Amino acid sequence: MTTDKILSAPVAPGGTIGILGGGQLGRMLAMAAARLGLKTHIYSDTEKAPAFQVSAGRSVAPYDDEAALAKFARACDAVTFEFENVPGQTAAFLADQVPVNPGPRALAISQERLAEKQFVAGLGLKTTAFAAIDSRNDLTNAIKTIGCPAVLKTRRMGYDGKGQAIVHNADEAMAAFDRFNGAPLILEGFVDFAFEASVIAARGLDGSFAAYDPPGNEHENHILRRSTVPCGLSPSQCDEAKGIARAIGEAFGYVGVFAVEMFVARNGALLVNEIAPRVHNSGHWTLEACIVSQFEQHMRAVAGWPLGDPARHSDAVMENILGAEAHDWLRIAQNGSALHLYGKGEARAGRKMGHLTRLKPLTKD
Amino acid sequence: MTTDKILSAPVAPGGTIGILGGGQLGRMLAMAAARLGLKTHIYSDTEKAPAFQVSAGRSVAPYDDEAALAKFARACDAVTFEFENVPGQTAAFLADQVPVNPGPRALAISQERLAEKQFVAGLGLKTTAFAAIDSRNDLTNAIKTIGCPAVLKTRRMGYDGKGQAIVHNADEAMAAFDRFNGAPLILEGFVDFAFEASVIAARGLDGSFAAYDPPGNEHENHILRRSTVPCGLSPSQCDEAKGIARAIGEAFGYVGVFAVEMFVARNGALLVNEIAPRVHNSGHWTLEACIVSQFEQHMRAVAGWPLGDPARHSDAVMENILGAEAHDWLRIAQNGSALHLYGKGEARAGRKMGHLTRLKPLTKD
Repeated sequence: MTTDKILSAPVAPGGTIGILGGGQLGRMLAMAAARLGLKTHIYSDTEKAPAFQVSAGRSVAPYDDEAALAKFARACDAVTFEFENVPGQTAAFLADQVPVNPGPRALAISQERLAEKQFVAGLGLKTTAFAAIDSRNDLTNAIKTIGCPAVLKTRRMGYDGKGQAIVHNADEAMAAFDRFNGAPLILEGFVDFAFEASVIAARGLDGSFAAYDPPGNEHENHILRRSTVPCGLSPSQCDEAKGIARAIGEAFGYVGVFAVEMFVARNGALLVNEIAPRVHNSGHWTLEACIVSQFEQHMRAVAGWPLGDPARHSDAVMENILGAEAHDWLRIAQNGSALHLYGKGEARAGRKMGHLTRLKPLTKD
Repeated sequence: MTTDKILSAPVAPGGTIGILGGGQLGRMLAMAAARLGLKTHIYSDTEKAPAFQVSAGRSVAPYDDEAALAKFARACDAVTFEFENVPGQTAAFLADQVPVNPGPRALAISQERLAEKQFVAGLGLKTTAFAAIDSRNDLTNAIKTIGCPAVLKTRRMGYDGKGQAIVHNADEAMAAFDRFNGAPLILEGFVDFAFEASVIAARGLDGSFAAYDPPGNEHENHILRRSTVPCGLSPSQCDEAKGIARAIGEAFGYVGVFAVEMFVARNGALLVNEIAPRVHNSGHWTLEACIVSQFEQHMRAVAGWPLGDPARHSDAVMENILGAEAHDWLRIAQNGSALHLYGKGEARAGRKMGHLTRLKPLTKD
């Protein structure tokens, strides 16, 4: 990795930022870049990628097509991605030819739940109890130590509740183990938390750090339904939450926006649940409530620009528009919220089709 | 014009709005459409049009190329434009094949200063004194009636101070007349106004009306430098200003966003100066200070959607970034304002390269 290209000067307006992935996050990143006078080039493995609708350059090819990746790299002054499951080889191949941020280490660690938990615990930060599960024997021991209920998860490719099972006793745990069919697993203690919060933070190329106020997040069927800011954390808890994000960002030598999902325990403790090395659904409210949104902040960071002010000027509630709810767009367009629809074709159940943000006058945490 | 296509139902997300013109207004319209899940197709006579960087569809052809226009019309569910100097024949050709808004009447009248002044005066609204000038004799008579100083203007194609001359006496008037070389002219009385304000308003397909709070506008070298809201008009003056816009919109049977520039006389009277049948530079602050910006409002109107709430949640000051000022982007990016750069190549003197908006807590007018 010592051959990784480093950005030697900010990408000037007129330059091109490449984005791997063409979903709604890539789309909103592309629009944020355009606001700054930067062009974007979207690379996606599907022709229907919604981000193509707002990008200057377009590549359609598999994520392991080295000829297409090389052509993409030549068209870009800097490259980033909208999703964390970019194959490590793809990231490494690109990083050899063009500055890529966030870097391969943050990507590799946040793709693997066990490595992520070990990394966070290694920084002296609190997490749920966890144990690596590679065998039935590991599971038997872990259930004894961690107790039930607990959550058995695959170490890779989990999102929106996929690849995980809540288990209430050793028998359920074994049944779940069998269903995961040999995939490397992790057992995590179940946290009876007060609520979930997240910190959306950014680290600049110069090591500067900026964090938005943490929203509180409500899920339905493991999919984010609503993020609300302020979320009821005390000022000292907010500072603590941002401090956790800062420690993680610095340990990664991170450049760009990332999210840290946290459980707020009933005793007020903040337990790190997950790191997302990208812009995050729980930060969409920053588009309306802040002068510099999470999308612009990420583009600033990966283009080597100074970070913007993350202060919010208003309180906000963001709600996702899921699946068939999007069919109701005409009614939703009249409810006084800021409406975002993602240009996706089919409104499959649970699919993130858009979101709404309602602003309220600013209160203090 | 009786064959003009009318939009029979709102254009649903996934549909395509065509935009004639590919400058910064087209670009910001395209981004607003994308936020609503609408695709855009930009038609411009230059390959370098900044709006191409954010549009799904692109046509490069002269504005009178009927084959290209027909193909463009087929690709779009509705069509609008970003500039008022669309040739009348182009608008009529398109309107025959696809719903086009605003309609040809608003376009024709606002392209011609004399027709515009006569139209406004015909609605019983105040304007500066004016007279049609087709000969030296007309000018001699008009100078006697209107007095000096006065402003001699071409009736067509004037913007940012082009095509006009301030004259302080009959000799200067004749010299200016000769310089305009036979073009149809209008003489307007010079108004020693307190300041200039504008109303950015929208009319929906259903006849609904929405107006933003009027900004006060400061010019330098005839180019807008700064718009500030609130602008110091009293609540009753604000209502009067919005009422003037409403009367104009209704008389046009207008669909879309338009701007009415007004002089605020020292005695408080509001004199209509100019109508722009499009989104307007003095409305750019609505991107940050309102839930629905002028760009989204225009897209909503021409797509047949319900208009959004024009209320502002913050006070705002918008400043243009002109010509070589754009070279200072890295410093500007750190000043805490919302930064917009338009993706233009060459920073020619006076060229609108971008703008900045600063928000402040809401005060009442």
